Amino acid sequence: MNQDLRREREAASFNPELLTHVLDGSPESTRRRREIENLILNDPDFQHEDLNFLTRSQRYEVAVRKSATMVKKMREFGIADPEEIMWFKRMHLVNFVEPVGLNFSMFIPTLLNQGTTAQQEKWLLSSKGLQIIGTYAQTEMGHGTHLRGLETTATYDPETQEFILNSPTVTSIKWWPGGLGKTSNHAIVLAQLITKGKCYGLHAFIVPIREIGTHKPLPGITVGDIGPKFGYDEMDNGYLKMDNYRIPRENMLMKHAQVKPDGTYVKPVSNKLTYGTMVFVRSFLVGEAARSLSKACTIAIRYSAVRHQSEIKPGEPEPQILDFQTQQYKLFPLLATAYAFQFVGAYMKETYHRINEDIGQGDLSELPELHALTAGLKAFTSWTTNAAIEACRMACGGHGYSHCSGLPNIYVTFTPTCTFEGENTVMMLQTARFLMKSYDQVHAGKLVCGMVSYLNGLPTQRIQPQQVAVWPAVVDIDSPDSLTEAYKLRATRLVEIAAKNLQNEVIHRKSKEVAWNLTSVDLVRASEAHCHYVAVKLFSEKLLKIEDKSVHAVLRNLCLLYCLYGISQKAGDFLQGSIMTESEITQVNQRIKELLIAIRPDAVALVDAFDFQDVTLGSVLGRYDGNVYENLFEWAKKSPLNKSEVHESYFKYLKPLQSKL
Amino acid sequence: MNQDLRREREAASFNPELLTHVLDGSPESTRRRREIENLILNDPDFQHEDLNFLTRSQRYEVAVRKSATMVKKMREFGIADPEEIMWFKRMHLVNFVEPVGLNFSMFIPTLLNQGTTAQQEKWLLSSKGLQIIGTYAQTEMGHGTHLRGLETTATYDPETQEFILNSPTVTSIKWWPGGLGKTSNHAIVLAQLITKGKCYGLHAFIVPIREIGTHKPLPGITVGDIGPKFGYDEMDNGYLKMDNYRIPRENMLMKHAQVKPDGTYVKPVSNKLTYGTMVFVRSFLVGEAARSLSKACTIAIRYSAVRHQSEIKPGEPEPQILDFQTQQYKLFPLLATAYAFQFVGAYMKETYHRINEDIGQGDLSELPELHALTAGLKAFTSWTTNAAIEACRMACGGHGYSHCSGLPNIYVTFTPTCTFEGENTVMMLQTARFLMKSYDQVHAGKLVCGMVSYLNGLPTQRIQPQQVAVWPAVVDIDSPDSLTEAYKLRATRLVEIAAKNLQNEVIHRKSKEVAWNLTSVDLVRASEAHCHYVAVKLFSEKLLKIEDKSVHAVLRNLCLLYCLYGISQKAGDFLQGSIMTESEITQVNQRIKELLIAIRPDAVALVDAFDFQDVTLGSVLGRYDGNVYENLFEWAKKSPLNKSEVHESYFKYLKPLQSKL
Repeated sequence: MNQDLRREREAASFNPELLTHVLDGSPESTRRRREIENLILNDPDFQHEDLNFLTRSQRYEVAVRKSATMVKKMREFGIADPEEIMWFKRMHLVNFVEPVGLNFSMFIPTLLNQGTTAQQEKWLLSSKGLQIIGTYAQTEMGHGTHLRGLETTATYDPETQEFILNSPTVTSIKWWPGGLGKTSNHAIVLAQLITKGKCYGLHAFIVPIREIGTHKPLPGITVGDIGPKFGYDEMDNGYLKMDNYRIPRENMLMKHAQVKPDGTYVKPVSNKLTYGTMVFVRSFLVGEAARSLSKACTIAIRYSAVRHQSEIKPGEPEPQILDFQTQQYKLFPLLATAYAFQFVGAYMKETYHRINEDIGQGDLSELPELHALTAGLKAFTSWTTNAAIEACRMACGGHGYSHCSGLPNIYVTFTPTCTFEGENTVMMLQTARFLMKSYDQVHAGKLVCGMVSYLNGLPTQRIQPQQVAVWPAVVDIDSPDSLTEAYKLRATRLVEIAAKNLQNEVIHRKSKEVAWNLTSVDLVRASEAHCHYVAVKLFSEKLLKIEDKSVHAVLRNLCLLYCLYGISQKAGDFLQGSIMTESEITQVNQRIKELLIAIRPDAVALVDAFDFQDVTLGSVLGRYDGNVYENLFEWAKKSPLNKSEVHESYFKYLKPLQSKL
Repeated sequence: MNQDLRREREAASFNPELLTHVLDGSPESTRRRREIENLILNDPDFQHEDLNFLTRSQRYEVAVRKSATMVKKMREFGIADPEEIMWFKRMHLVNFVEPVGLNFSMFIPTLLNQGTTAQQEKWLLSSKGLQIIGTYAQTEMGHGTHLRGLETTATYDPETQEFILNSPTVTSIKWWPGGLGKTSNHAIVLAQLITKGKCYGLHAFIVPIREIGTHKPLPGITVGDIGPKFGYDEMDNGYLKMDNYRIPRENMLMKHAQVKPDGTYVKPVSNKLTYGTMVFVRSFLVGEAARSLSKACTIAIRYSAVRHQSEIKPGEPEPQILDFQTQQYKLFPLLATAYAFQFVGAYMKETYHRINEDIGQGDLSELPELHALTAGLKAFTSWTTNAAIEACRMACGGHGYSHCSGLPNIYVTFTPTCTFEGENTVMMLQTARFLMKSYDQVHAGKLVCGMVSYLNGLPTQRIQPQQVAVWPAVVDIDSPDSLTEAYKLRATRLVEIAAKNLQNEVIHRKSKEVAWNLTSVDLVRASEAHCHYVAVKLFSEKLLKIEDKSVHAVLRNLCLLYCLYGISQKAGDFLQGSIMTESEITQVNQRIKELLIAIRPDAVALVDAFDFQDVTLGSVLGRYDGNVYENLFEWAKKSPLNKSEVHESYFKYLKPLQSKL
């Protein structure tokens, strides 16, 4: 093991294994996760290949091979539990994605949620075995966020009992679905259902797109890859154009809505149920944000412990760069954020499962809040994580720019999270809509519950936003609870300002919608403050459940740093409305510097606790073992440009210039 | 032309051509720039190839071909002026880099600055003609920022009158130089000079690394590509390991320091002169930041004018996304920042040339401030631009993630600016050192001049940072001058806090260096505030020089937005020390929303004024003409994965699974 890392580990004030159990949920869960990860690490069929050295077509091929192997292996190893499948996949893919991913994450779940029993019988087994490879085609070239704007049509023809699928314009071409370009032979297509001359809005249809056996696109289907992207090189995100393409009536997913053979439309009992998948995906993405950020922190902090550079005291050996206050200030607040998001992710998962059970029993009462909360938290955590991964990368200096660090791939694989599954600004505005509704309820004298219950404390008689909130300013900056209270006051104040500004615009503009647009900056700000409060609150509450004293002490410091750093960054929000005083803000900045010093000895152990076995595969800088520089040199030698001593372009273009010498 | 863009242009309140003249410096300069750019646009030898569809090796080859053609063409067209070369290169490269770039940007300039006349005679002409292809090898695998830590040695052997160059460790391997991996046949190598048993520190040596004619690495030289990176795919950033490799004494660049044939070392007259290149490169990078951000804004704003999505009023057609307040709030402050940085860039260029003339006449008095200013502004503008390009990309939703937008390439080509040519945090601390020195001078009763002269207003008797600055809070938020004053007060306050905290740490720590490290977060904050003030000041001053009324009006709005947005983002800094009141901050937030509305009709014309002819080549979303979606579909069809209808990996890995059906 690297000497610096050994020393760091020996100096840690706590046992990282105990913290790993906290993150996994239990010691048993840690054990089982490692067991599954080791199946891959010890299997010769899973020799890790570094996709960085391959062309796009080669990367795609490796990814297809990995997917095919994985399906076989999971069957062989008897891995069927969704959580265990996730562990298996992650270790297998390292920082990359797989072309058949949507078959498992979208095609099969949609079939289960929206397909009839007969439909499940027909398609489920073969899609699990990858005989049918499905994807989910919703987004169109000209339409993403606004579902009602989607142009693809599915017109029912009672004569033949078929749906005619059509892409009437260039903008209506399905665009982006993963695995659509080359891999899939089926797609669940979202299209405007038209029957008996009337449009009933979006419905889902199973559309065969390629012939089984030859894999050729079927007549009437135009399908292909949408071209190179920032990342996702090994994924064939695709386009799909349908020219009056016919599918049997039975290919409409009919668990909820139905079209009878004669073309009669039967509407679904409740629309709320379709929320389910969105809520699940978004709450899952919160956990993914935590994971990506934790990984980036692992790499940057380990590298900062190994890298020696510059000098603090002249004449002494070059210090570890982790000893520079500026480096600590870059990385430790991100580490604290990673922990905060881990706990938010765990909470989202629990809550989703709890509410899903309620839904199963017909109780939909908590769904609106969960929907609002997942929307905002997906945006809040992904925006923060997005910037934070890049901060980690740049904290590794030049080497962070090389794919040897693993960080560019973590970034480009993560960053779509900000724009997909609900664009972040749109998500924040959905949360804001819930906040405004809750605000109105409080003003109408009703009590609201759940995460927004703090709004119940709002006085009801204020008019000017400037006069909002003259709270007694006594914040104990060493108490997570007191800091959570400060975040709560900030959220209350910003929700109230947004509500007042909205009311004001409504009076002047006469259209609620125009008023909403002209207040949307304030609304996003309110949602962010709400989400930030939720994150702070969940972190503080988590502390109460930590039994081990030394683990508790180090997590408490991280929690304080997370709270105080946020206050320092948004000091204006806390000074306004007198939530905190100027002298308190000065203390906050001072206390942050003390916390950096306090966390420093445990920094490496804190990233070790994330226990990313795959970091050793995906990042030279994040490895546990050996000499990072020797590893780096070995890695570089594999560069495709090093295949020949002299590149052929020399003879073509440069040698002719040199003949003049 | 696209109908939306046509309407936008017709509605503009000013003539963008006049603003283009302002940005270029004069109408004549605009004319000449376009003339040169058109040489490329109209030349069949320069048909633009989209590197996005190529493998790394193919990209490298295209880039080498481009470089070779460019050298011939520039000679043919008689382009020799540095500014004109720049215009030519930019249009030619679009968003990419070239393997021989360092020959022109570093090898030749270093030869000119540090080589004797005889050395220039020997190498200059052939390096201009690319017979000698040079690069500049300073950074080592284990050493970047800290020059004294570089390990490569050049030991003089008086017997043979040669230097023996050696890379004694893995960490001493030269790492990163552009064009080093495959392209260059010479490198200027920075090495610790040892003669007569004594080390005299870093000196520059011309080292042949490949044989002219065969291009094979010379014996004793190990050279290659450092492997795939986030960007710079077409660049062969390289490594160089030298094993007791001998070069003639004449290959040491001896304009300043010298080694006599017998090994006697003659030291240079002044060390300050070597500042020159660094200052030049960094001031150039400020202009590059402006340019990259302007380009990103051009693409994002044009796309936002063309893209229709969602709804503001139900039932009405989908609006241009540029009509959403949140979209305006994302993009217009960045547009304002792009203009601010354009003016900062122009100022840096002027100042550099002015001071360079002074230096030519032996007057080095302004060099320290220029050095400090370029360091900080390089960091300030590159950090801001870095985040802003990504914000532009994400403002384009999913399509921003595709290389069709051009934005991923702009980002990955720009982002190294934050870590190269002086890592940004290190740069900020250099500026801070100058600020602290100026602060001490003021306290010693001396006057300071230039951009830090505001420190002269500091009272000298304060002790507690909290008591700093009780200025009368009357800021006119509609006056750029008054806002500049507010930024000045903020900078003063943060410089003073950093200085006080530094003094305080010095008292407690007993080591100045440890105290410096423990204050470095405050020092960086002070530098940022100083740089922000400089940017605001230069923008405000630029307004005074704009004669055309309509151009003045729209630039004034942008200047106000730049100032107010900064205040809103850092409200805490302006509330503390009572620079502004809470009610003023509320007004700032309100005024920002009004400015978004005011700027909206001119947004497209404001990016047109940047006049990027190459955006049409490098971005489907940023084009002037035609239907963006049809262009996008045509572009996607060129994807390498679309070469065959069925990818071979289907037959290898998926078909076997399907045989079971």
